[in-house]
Amino acid sequence: MTSLSRSEALSLFAISAAGVAIISNAFQGDGNPVVASLAFSGIAFSATYAMIRWLGNTFMKAGLKGTDMSKLRKVEIPETMGAVCAVVYLLCIIMFIPFPFYKDIVAATSGGGNKDYIQEVHHVETGRFLHRFPHNKLAAYLSAILSLQSIVILGIGDDLFDIRWRHKVLIPAFASVPMLIVYFVDFGVTQVVVPTPLQQYLGDLFNLGWLYYAYMAAFAIFCPNSINILAGINGIEVSQSIVIALLILANDVLYLPPFTSYPHPATDAHLFSIYLLLPFLGVSCALLMHNWYPAKVFVGDTYCYFAGMVFAVDGILGHFSKTLWLLFLPQVFNFVYSAPQLFHIVPCPRHRLPHFNARTGLMEPSTATFRKPPARPVQAVLKLLGELRLLQVKTDNKGEVVECSNMTLINLWLVWFGPMREDRLCMGLMAFQFACGVAGLFVRHRLALLVFTQDNL
Amino acid sequence: MTSLSRSEALSLFAISAAGVAIISNAFQGDGNPVVASLAFSGIAFSATYAMIRWLGNTFMKAGLKGTDMSKLRKVEIPETMGAVCAVVYLLCIIMFIPFPFYKDIVAATSGGGNKDYIQEVHHVETGRFLHRFPHNKLAAYLSAILSLQSIVILGIGDDLFDIRWRHKVLIPAFASVPMLIVYFVDFGVTQVVVPTPLQQYLGDLFNLGWLYYAYMAAFAIFCPNSINILAGINGIEVSQSIVIALLILANDVLYLPPFTSYPHPATDAHLFSIYLLLPFLGVSCALLMHNWYPAKVFVGDTYCYFAGMVFAVDGILGHFSKTLWLLFLPQVFNFVYSAPQLFHIVPCPRHRLPHFNARTGLMEPSTATFRKPPARPVQAVLKLLGELRLLQVKTDNKGEVVECSNMTLINLWLVWFGPMREDRLCMGLMAFQFACGVAGLFVRHRLALLVFTQDNL
Repeated sequence: MTSLSRSEALSLFAISAAGVAIISNAFQGDGNPVVASLAFSGIAFSATYAMIRWLGNTFMKAGLKGTDMSKLRKVEIPETMGAVCAVVYLLCIIMFIPFPFYKDIVAATSGGGNKDYIQEVHHVETGRFLHRFPHNKLAAYLSAILSLQSIVILGIGDDLFDIRWRHKVLIPAFASVPMLIVYFVDFGVTQVVVPTPLQQYLGDLFNLGWLYYAYMAAFAIFCPNSINILAGINGIEVSQSIVIALLILANDVLYLPPFTSYPHPATDAHLFSIYLLLPFLGVSCALLMHNWYPAKVFVGDTYCYFAGMVFAVDGILGHFSKTLWLLFLPQVFNFVYSAPQLFHIVPCPRHRLPHFNARTGLMEPSTATFRKPPARPVQAVLKLLGELRLLQVKTDNKGEVVECSNMTLINLWLVWFGPMREDRLCMGLMAFQFACGVAGLFVRHRLALLVFTQDNL
Repeated sequence: MTSLSRSEALSLFAISAAGVAIISNAFQGDGNPVVASLAFSGIAFSATYAMIRWLGNTFMKAGLKGTDMSKLRKVEIPETMGAVCAVVYLLCIIMFIPFPFYKDIVAATSGGGNKDYIQEVHHVETGRFLHRFPHNKLAAYLSAILSLQSIVILGIGDDLFDIRWRHKVLIPAFASVPMLIVYFVDFGVTQVVVPTPLQQYLGDLFNLGWLYYAYMAAFAIFCPNSINILAGINGIEVSQSIVIALLILANDVLYLPPFTSYPHPATDAHLFSIYLLLPFLGVSCALLMHNWYPAKVFVGDTYCYFAGMVFAVDGILGHFSKTLWLLFLPQVFNFVYSAPQLFHIVPCPRHRLPHFNARTGLMEPSTATFRKPPARPVQAVLKLLGELRLLQVKTDNKGEVVECSNMTLINLWLVWFGPMREDRLCMGLMAFQFACGVAGLFVRHRLALLVFTQDNL
């Protein structure tokens, strides 16, 4: 199916028309950028939905296609559709640039654009000099877009050329360079607030210096890769990203009126986060509708990198990366749990996605087989994990471990709750992601006072 | 050949090592950003040269390959190698961001980075506030990178999906959006200096308003597309870009000491141009060495768009787009000359590249055949062009035009100077491009006084 049905076309047109109407009124009077951002998200949703449908065949013809291994009928479907999402998203946040700065432009040029401003020949060369304009916020916003564009270029390269795993991991590191450099040039704060128990040793603020840049780079490497390894079943990459984005949004809203009175130092940073996330939700929902079980398109590594990078720039430039770790708990767990296979202590098959049982139509844990029995200590740990129900372990009659389930959160979920259909599996994991995130936010805002003198809310 | 020879590897390593040494010393004392930019260009050259060699097979495997029609032996060679250039270039100018602003960072934080700056808890949320930092220049630089990244993403899409001609033309329009929006938000000057004869009617300055944005968009659409249609023989896309870049550089140097005393309002704009062009020359030279006759790789539409966009952002953000038109004279001529075929007044075959005569090994003008005789006035114009030696026209015994040479500058060159080998043809056209550009710059700086009160030099 490569064209839109009549009702789809009408709905998308209605959403877009409403969006255009709202945006064209945003510059009248006291336009609210959040409303404009919502309108952009609606248009982004419609455009992505339509383009994924229209471009399916084009992608297949260019060789961007794959086969779904977890279905009875093995048909080829388009791959790398995350690139469509990403391009629509980028265009949206670029078009959005003037909106958060509209009031500042008016204020800086003394009301009504440039009209009352006395212009001299000199200014034609040097531009207007806006003392009151929040230039550093503009630079931060631009650097976010630069990093996102970089990850899209590199992600498309990865999907095209099948880059090796050990090189892939570093793609987000390259993409984070523009953000870190602009942070260095224009913001440059590397102090962090010291937790109360340590203040007697370190003072209120501690200057991390270049370590702070290393931390930001590590964070930017973690987010995209962690989404990329919690993958393999229909819809999971997109739905985990949507859940995380919704939880960040919930956290952002806490810094806006009526929850916080307006001139709060963190309000602008959280508004910035909202502007980045709303269109992301728009394009992701459109993609999910095509990628949900049974998937009609695949998202590609491009989407995983892109989604992770949206969260990374959001957390870093919004100054709430500590909070973001709490929303990534299932991903952190999945990474730590995967480590023995990623570092080849336990054999790692080419694909670790769960096994599709064609007879029952259900997903079952996939397994890694030991060609020779592993070393004693490894066996002991594996058996302990088996006792704790954190792994499915099979031993031979001599008591030696010969097989274990692949170490991913997805397989573990199947070990816990037994075989289930692909969409139930995805929904279960998303409920888990959501529950972990809500608990994390509760800890962040209720228990932070134990180690810091104030919740910055 | 997919690996570097020993002498190639040694030379590239030497260039890179020298570059790294220079850059690591750039922050000591009175480092000169132009020297750092030169060093970056050397590294960019080495990286591009090596990567084009290494990635050839990878590109072929991903289906990015094509056959050279103007050779006796038809072998497939890698296509879209301009994407490698562009990615290396982007990484370079992103890494370069701190260099032009180094002195400003030091000045704004009262000497020696952040050390003496008294930092309050408040600043951890809001960043340092740098009154003296040239924020608007940083935003302009970032917007240039955004536009270049956009054109690379869209150009790769074009090379992958073979987009239709009438959609292709608009790719640069999309890519110019970030530059125009940041111009609107942060610079906003839409006044132009009025030529002397018109000043009595319009005043010294005339506010073009939104027309100025339309002009910039048109310029950004013209540059990439004009390079993309002056194409089709080995090396021509890259060498015309190198000639234009060298001429812009020559013009930039006129605004630096010793030619101009330092605090000149346009100096910074021309330094900006130099920072963009030096690494461009680096990556382009590396590409040319692989794309020169007989070509071992093709550059792809990505390169043409990318090169044109470098010139467009350079001219627009450096405020010398009028001068740039003079350096694009052969491209303007080629576009006007092509118009009858582009708009289908004269039949337009799928490819208009010159015809390779396998017997002589030389290039000859390719032709368009009229299936039915064209209308009277068209015939009259074609015959007139034929008389003026601006077209090769063939008539049947009734005097009706049945065939004419394809309307491109490349074919016209062959009409003028007879069949020649592909590399001689390219060199001739480049000499022409260079001569036109030098004449254009002469007009710009010597004759501009006839219509403006002062040469802004």
